Amino acid sequence: MAEQWLTFLSDFGFEDPFLGVCKGVIARTAPAVRVLDVMHLVQPQDVEHGAAVLASAVPYLPAPAVHLALVDPFREPPARPVAVLTADGSIFIAPDNGLTSTAWDCAGGALECRVLDDESLWHPAAARTFRGRDVFSPVAARLANGLAFDAVGSEIAVDDLERLAVREPMVEADHVHGEVSQVDHFGNLTLNLQAAHLESVGIGLGDDVDLRVGGRSQIVPFLLTYGQVARGRLAVCEDSFRTVTIAVHSGSAAARLRARRGDPLVISRREKGAGASATVVLPPEPDLSTGRT
Amino acid sequence: MAEQWLTFLSDFGFEDPFLGVCKGVIARTAPAVRVLDVMHLVQPQDVEHGAAVLASAVPYLPAPAVHLALVDPFREPPARPVAVLTADGSIFIAPDNGLTSTAWDCAGGALECRVLDDESLWHPAAARTFRGRDVFSPVAARLANGLAFDAVGSEIAVDDLERLAVREPMVEADHVHGEVSQVDHFGNLTLNLQAAHLESVGIGLGDDVDLRVGGRSQIVPFLLTYGQVARGRLAVCEDSFRTVTIAVHSGSAAARLRARRGDPLVISRREKGAGASATVVLPPEPDLSTGRT
Amino acid sequence: MAEQWLTFLSDFGFEDPFLGVCKGVIARTAPAVRVLDVMHLVQPQDVEHGAAVLASAVPYLPAPAVHLALVDPFREPPARPVAVLTADGSIFIAPDNGLTSTAWDCAGGALECRVLDDESLWHPAAARTFRGRDVFSPVAARLANGLAFDAVGSEIAVDDLERLAVREPMVEADHVHGEVSQVDHFGNLTLNLQAAHLESVGIGLGDDVDLRVGGRSQIVPFLLTYGQVARGRLAVCEDSFRTVTIAVHSGSAAARLRARRGDPLVISRREKGAGASATVVLPPEPDLSTGRT
Repeated sequence: MAEQWLTFLSDFGFEDPFLGVCKGVIARTAPAVRVLDVMHLVQPQDVEHGAAVLASAVPYLPAPAVHLALVDPFREPPARPVAVLTADGSIFIAPDNGLTSTAWDCAGGALECRVLDDESLWHPAAARTFRGRDVFSPVAARLANGLAFDAVGSEIAVDDLERLAVREPMVEADHVHGEVSQVDHFGNLTLNLQAAHLESVGIGLGDDVDLRVGGRSQIVPFLLTYGQVARGRLAVCEDSFRTVTIAVHSGSAAARLRARRGDPLVISRREKGAGASATVVLPPEPDLSTGRT
Repeated sequence: MAEQWLTFLSDFGFEDPFLGVCKGVIARTAPAVRVLDVMHLVQPQDVEHGAAVLASAVPYLPAPAVHLALVDPFREPPARPVAVLTADGSIFIAPDNGLTSTAWDCAGGALECRVLDDESLWHPAAARTFRGRDVFSPVAARLANGLAFDAVGSEIAVDDLERLAVREPMVEADHVHGEVSQVDHFGNLTLNLQAAHLESVGIGLGDDVDLRVGGRSQIVPFLLTYGQVARGRLAVCEDSFRTVTIAVHSGSAAARLRARRGDPLVISRREKGAGASATVVLPPEPDLSTGRT
Repeated sequence: MAEQWLTFLSDFGFEDPFLGVCKGVIARTAPAVRVLDVMHLVQPQDVEHGAAVLASAVPYLPAPAVHLALVDPFREPPARPVAVLTADGSIFIAPDNGLTSTAWDCAGGALECRVLDDESLWHPAAARTFRGRDVFSPVAARLANGLAFDAVGSEIAVDDLERLAVREPMVEADHVHGEVSQVDHFGNLTLNLQAAHLESVGIGLGDDVDLRVGGRSQIVPFLLTYGQVARGRLAVCEDSFRTVTIAVHSGSAAARLRARRGDPLVISRREKGAGASATVVLPPEPDLSTGRT
């Protein structure tokens, strides 16, 4: 029998039994289903963060699969619990708050949607305040276990689902306005830019660019990998998810630039020969041995 | 074949190989057993914390199952390693220090107990200082794999097992003395109170109460969910585990009230019309975007 | 069918989707394989830390197994991705930077080695900067799933592999120079010493020793377990991995001694009757209830 995968992303963290309890409900409901943890340290109640992480991960997750995503900030009335079927046969289970909207396209696009309003599929004593445990987990487990998609509840139009506004970069004559869309564990900054955006303003590999962020400006090379600069130096490069990233060789770009997710920045073309990045005086590299940031 | 579940709760955290090594021993001993992580960030050596978490989680975990729980503060002689069989067919493996005593009732009550003193079931070279790896994990794995309960060692009376004193709230004429029993990832405070305690002093849904904690007093509404107050406001409500909780809409009650687990508090009935919570001036809401608390 | 185990150690942490994405690739490539997490909080890019953890864990992990280990600091050219077959039939997949070199002996010794240069086994669109996802994970999954060892790429000599220099202690007439090799979650300090080193300079169980670390010196007993000293006292003892450790009963030796991994220390024999450890005035014990360190 094929494995039945249920991937799981949330903002639950590990300091509470929330995650264990949801997995308990899944195991009680559908013992053969296997859970794959995508990530559980989405910033608390931060739907945009969760959406960006999920969209970047989906191309590498089992397919078709049931993807359970739980980042559910309070609002009145609460976001509807929905199941979205995509063209590759996957099903996304999440609150209708845009959390999975950027991931559908990575799975072929949204085809159909159902609200999880068949209460007979919920945990028998569903609580008002923990729908993750009482509604989302048992229904996701049943779907991963083979329940038909259209059995989970009433159909609604895919066009009625909430979608996150994707913040597109702004391309001017000789510069691009973007923002930091993710900061990773190593302090690398992922931007909302593809290399093509830089190319469209005349910036190619090997060029120095003018990078403005947090009120400061500096000259940084655009390279294939950060390994092409000296230890402790900044580089703009293309990351493993094909997007433009800012990194410090053997250091943290987030610490160096005091940059956080959502911070705006501008990358400008420089005239050739206008001064090389090698002449920029950089502050000393932070000590990596002092532990995790 | 039915899945063989072993649930696992500990204070091991994730910074060491302790957890991985115990799972390694389980996998070597009984490869088909599936481990379900309940939580591994119990406060180090805090038996009461672990007991509260386990009791709240058990109703949602597979049943029957083997529940391995490892929070084992030093004492001389060490707490005996025991297996407790409950009425639903589950087995709790833990040191005899009260850690699982509040969870037995969630599994139908303790029926029988054995000390894990059959050394032939231990890791061959059992160490003095890591019984989790050398005694508890291999025996739990064998039980999850089908070993008969009475094969693990000598019988002892269930009445001889250590039990945690449950700190009951104190109910007075018009107020209740309770305490913070858990602080969750989002900063919500779980109390050792049920809604019935509040009702017994005349506090019903929709009433304002007088909440005294940490030397300060404030007027807070008792509501169905914290979503019924404005963003940044405090509410007393019933949480998803059916106990009374204190929450801040889109904020952290723990940060607002500077409250920690074990802190005492008093909730008093207010005369109707004695002043509404809406008039209370609250400090500004902490910035949620600054990261995890 | 026997379970197919893939153990996984890394410095990925849990704040990014890196770990989930690698597990996704493993699940896509070989759905039946089961992943056992050894530890993912190796200090970022710290090969020595990862190597010490892996070597201590391997004796307790399934065998034979495929062991995937990913701590891969930048260097030019990058460390070759290699598979090392050991005498017990296990396979270690890692960058050739010494990360697994101390673990091979725990698995019977390295027999053969292959470079992972058959690109048909990689992720179809392998990226330059995330070899964990695109090279190591898919090849490890295929090996765990039964792919023949010699199918992964070109053979190289085991003697050509990079090995970590093991920092051996220095034994003098009446004292031993060692260092802190690990600090665990509870603040215990593991040293690069076995009890035999202490015995070789005349230190036996029950003796007091002179412990010099961080510019300070103190008298500490060498005992079977830290439980033999009073709460809050230091002890030198043998840990559950059979190495010499420094612990504080119900406290953190790391906090007490302000010691970190890599710190040098000296343990000297004391003349009998030269003053007992009981007379040493110790600073007050840190409050364990203030949370995780």
